Amino acid sequence: MSNDRLIFVALGGAGEIGMNTYVYGWGAPDKERLIVVDLGVTFPDMDSTPGVDLIFADIAWLEERANQIEGIFITHAHEDHVGAVGLLWPRLRAPIYARNFTAHHARRKMQDRGQDPDKVIEAPVWPETVKAGPFTIGFAPISHSIPESSAMIIDTPAGRVVHTGDFKLDETPLVGEPFDPDMWGEIGTSGVKALVCDSTNVFSSQPGRSEASVGPEIVKLVNDSRGMFVATTFASNVARVKTLADAGVAAGRSVCLLGRAMRRMVEASVTTGVLTDFPTTISPEDAESIPRENLMLLVTGSQGERRAASAQLARGRYMGLELAEGDTFLFSSKTIPGNEKGVIHVMNAMAEKGVDVVDDSSGHYHVSGHANRPDIDRMHALIKPQMVIPMHGEYRHLRENARLAESNGCASVIAPNGSVVDMTGKQPKVVEHIETARTYLDGDVQIGQFDGVVRDRIRMGLNGHALVTLILEGNEPLGDPWVELSGLPETGRSKAPLVDVLEEDLGQFVGRAKRKTLSDDAALEKELRNIVRKSTENEIGKKPEVTVVVSRLN
Amino acid sequence: MSNDRLIFVALGGAGEIGMNTYVYGWGAPDKERLIVVDLGVTFPDMDSTPGVDLIFADIAWLEERANQIEGIFITHAHEDHVGAVGLLWPRLRAPIYARNFTAHHARRKMQDRGQDPDKVIEAPVWPETVKAGPFTIGFAPISHSIPESSAMIIDTPAGRVVHTGDFKLDETPLVGEPFDPDMWGEIGTSGVKALVCDSTNVFSSQPGRSEASVGPEIVKLVNDSRGMFVATTFASNVARVKTLADAGVAAGRSVCLLGRAMRRMVEASVTTGVLTDFPTTISPEDAESIPRENLMLLVTGSQGERRAASAQLARGRYMGLELAEGDTFLFSSKTIPGNEKGVIHVMNAMAEKGVDVVDDSSGHYHVSGHANRPDIDRMHALIKPQMVIPMHGEYRHLRENARLAESNGCASVIAPNGSVVDMTGKQPKVVEHIETARTYLDGDVQIGQFDGVVRDRIRMGLNGHALVTLILEGNEPLGDPWVELSGLPETGRSKAPLVDVLEEDLGQFVGRAKRKTLSDDAALEKELRNIVRKSTENEIGKKPEVTVVVSRLN
Repeated sequence: MSNDRLIFVALGGAGEIGMNTYVYGWGAPDKERLIVVDLGVTFPDMDSTPGVDLIFADIAWLEERANQIEGIFITHAHEDHVGAVGLLWPRLRAPIYARNFTAHHARRKMQDRGQDPDKVIEAPVWPETVKAGPFTIGFAPISHSIPESSAMIIDTPAGRVVHTGDFKLDETPLVGEPFDPDMWGEIGTSGVKALVCDSTNVFSSQPGRSEASVGPEIVKLVNDSRGMFVATTFASNVARVKTLADAGVAAGRSVCLLGRAMRRMVEASVTTGVLTDFPTTISPEDAESIPRENLMLLVTGSQGERRAASAQLARGRYMGLELAEGDTFLFSSKTIPGNEKGVIHVMNAMAEKGVDVVDDSSGHYHVSGHANRPDIDRMHALIKPQMVIPMHGEYRHLRENARLAESNGCASVIAPNGSVVDMTGKQPKVVEHIETARTYLDGDVQIGQFDGVVRDRIRMGLNGHALVTLILEGNEPLGDPWVELSGLPETGRSKAPLVDVLEEDLGQFVGRAKRKTLSDDAALEKELRNIVRKSTENEIGKKPEVTVVVSRLN
Repeated sequence: MSNDRLIFVALGGAGEIGMNTYVYGWGAPDKERLIVVDLGVTFPDMDSTPGVDLIFADIAWLEERANQIEGIFITHAHEDHVGAVGLLWPRLRAPIYARNFTAHHARRKMQDRGQDPDKVIEAPVWPETVKAGPFTIGFAPISHSIPESSAMIIDTPAGRVVHTGDFKLDETPLVGEPFDPDMWGEIGTSGVKALVCDSTNVFSSQPGRSEASVGPEIVKLVNDSRGMFVATTFASNVARVKTLADAGVAAGRSVCLLGRAMRRMVEASVTTGVLTDFPTTISPEDAESIPRENLMLLVTGSQGERRAASAQLARGRYMGLELAEGDTFLFSSKTIPGNEKGVIHVMNAMAEKGVDVVDDSSGHYHVSGHANRPDIDRMHALIKPQMVIPMHGEYRHLRENARLAESNGCASVIAPNGSVVDMTGKQPKVVEHIETARTYLDGDVQIGQFDGVVRDRIRMGLNGHALVTLILEGNEPLGDPWVELSGLPETGRSKAPLVDVLEEDLGQFVGRAKRKTLSDDAALEKELRNIVRKSTENEIGKKPEVTVVVSRLN
């Protein structure tokens, strides 16, 4: 009897929101043929990852099995799903499949990292499919906040798996394919083994609102505004960008796109045909000569990013354009947790210029791209799966989605990153835990989360740094120890310069030190370090990081 | 004719939420007699102030005028109003006035920093007053989210100033004095020159809700819960703590306070008489032996602070108590911007233990302590001031409150930190700008925001640190340069250890360097630094901070 099994494992995205990296396998244990769904990134912050450029899943487990991979399938073009394609492809070297618009972005990701964009293959739309080893995969259109988002319909020898990707149930998404309940009902009718399901908004108890509900509110706001109207949103939310631009044109305003991502995303949408009737835009140079009450800027920087157009405008002139008293600035977006201070900073800088800043605290100017609890419920009901595996959520979201599934009569399991789920039987079972972690792109280098590099940076950032150098000839000190400080107060309790106090204390120690200590590098370094830490704590109340360099001439 | 004038200046709190520090003056220009209202702190974060312990206003301007200060008046016991009293008093040395409960906290702040708690004088409650030079100051009870909050009624030769402090209009605050519209109307009837007014919630368009509205919702939640019920809130919100405890007792649960701030705040409230009927609590030791369905814990850590009780419980056993499957944890609080990630982290850790985490996203379990827009409006109407000076808000809040005041027929001016406002005439006028900044408590040392200490730490935290040592005898290098790295990847492009690559490059340079370079410390250091930065960038794509130590033997 065959011991082939169907497995699912998240390397990223389950137990967090970001860096989605999912793997399905079919075959004998540890000989499974594999497919990868999404290779996303997440973003660093000063608290835990200072100086890091990007974060993605540690794919060591997958890399060891690179020759088992039949293909990489990208659900949609958000950074947390496609962002690591160019960085990780050289370690996996399997064909990448994505629909037209997504493929456009995936190719750019490959190019940006010096990889061959032709490894990205345009996938057909469901009901057409792609064969990949024992799997047959269909890209089924599903509504989200970016065009051409797709769920993966994965037919396997053990039955059908529906991997929702990010989704909402929007029958009027304005750009991209509407949610089609008939198609989804049909996908479910032949029996679905597992629904692997977006959990992001499982705590939102009201049904999600359509993208179309935002337009009338924005039109009202634009019509009521006097000076220049400036709006920001996620550039990838092409429907929203279009809604904003349409509202501007309807109010007799010329529309100008500011910020690379905004221009690129609209271009990509037009090039790939997902956007057919975007209004004509003008260049920043032309915008300069248009009366501000006839102008609308659509800009990058909804998260308060320092280098984006919104922050640049908040600081001063940008591309020849400048905010002024009486202008309106709309954040048609939500603030992602962790970005609040940056957004608030930009808002206040704008308020200082006399700009009326409008955000979504009223709930009128933004809708989420994810299914709320009743929508997830409806998806469970449409697909009628044997089991639901929650994904795309923090642990609390996975747990809640699993509970919801069970209340709907489905089997379920909470499977955060690294849990290998065996879906072959009627009940999903976690059969193994593999080590997962994060990989940091630091400059050009990929380093491990636990390499200690970032930990050392955090310590220096928190505690400051003291450097001690001591030169010995044989075992005889040549002069006193020398101290250099960085990131530490200049003076403390004794009012004398801290560096003098430390050199004095170290000099006294070296003057009195026994030959045995002076002849032992490790002992000497330890003593010098301890003196610096103790004396500094005594002077200023905190202990610095210390580097000791003992140079021995002979 | 006298040129005496009445001035107002914020050194902290206007243009930010935090570190409230306000000054009023009466007299000839720059000879004014002064009073200080509040000496608060704000809290550091990793983004801008890594390693800093506390932040408060730079009081250099005030310190130079210490002999003009008649008194320091504290409106209420929140950290952003009283937190810097002990740290700054030695530089001001004026008597501190506060009502009983606030004085209790101010005395502790003095003691904590080795100052004499008897400098804190208990102030009587309005209509009694305190004389301080040309000022007569009354502490008028006003509702907020901590007991005994008071507005300052400041009578001056130029007329009456009402400094609201933090306030809401709550006629059923449960603990502390209810808002008394009659008293406030009366304070306004004799004519008020200026209302210096809390602006925090000016963008909240609905009238604020009473503390009393939270109780029934909490009772319902507690009654519906099965396992242990744990709740956190701001410890200083004594009314909320009581509401929670009462709900616990009503549901037959024993109540245990966890976390120092929680125990201290309840003790202080009982000691000072603001809390008369708090339920009996039990110790953590006793709690261990009580069935969890009969237990309620009230814990510190509503902001996800790593060392608070909530985070400790999320990680594991704390004080003999442990969360388990089926317990409920309530955040009866809002998350202050910047703390989102910490709170989310705690929530997920609890979810992993099977705990049902409830936050205030429903709007049922928390109310704000600040007046919303309609309440501010009502305050303007009750007091009928000549002018409104907005305070306690970011710039956008000050601007909006000023606009609201003007729409109510009051003069107004936006006066962020450092703006000296002359209130003598009918219109407030900004007549001067004084330099303001932040002071950091770093360990035990007060350092200036612009001293460069924290900037250096941030740079090391972001970029890592490379150390180069070179020893010369006369102008002859003794051996090759030596490199130590901290917070940098071990290998880069060439796959050789980065430290080896750098030592190689530096060694080559030193071997070829001209006598002129080798004899010039500054030139040599510069060259070595540049080589390290360039070679590191070439290897790993980023430039580190570099310290070069050239030791010259002779």
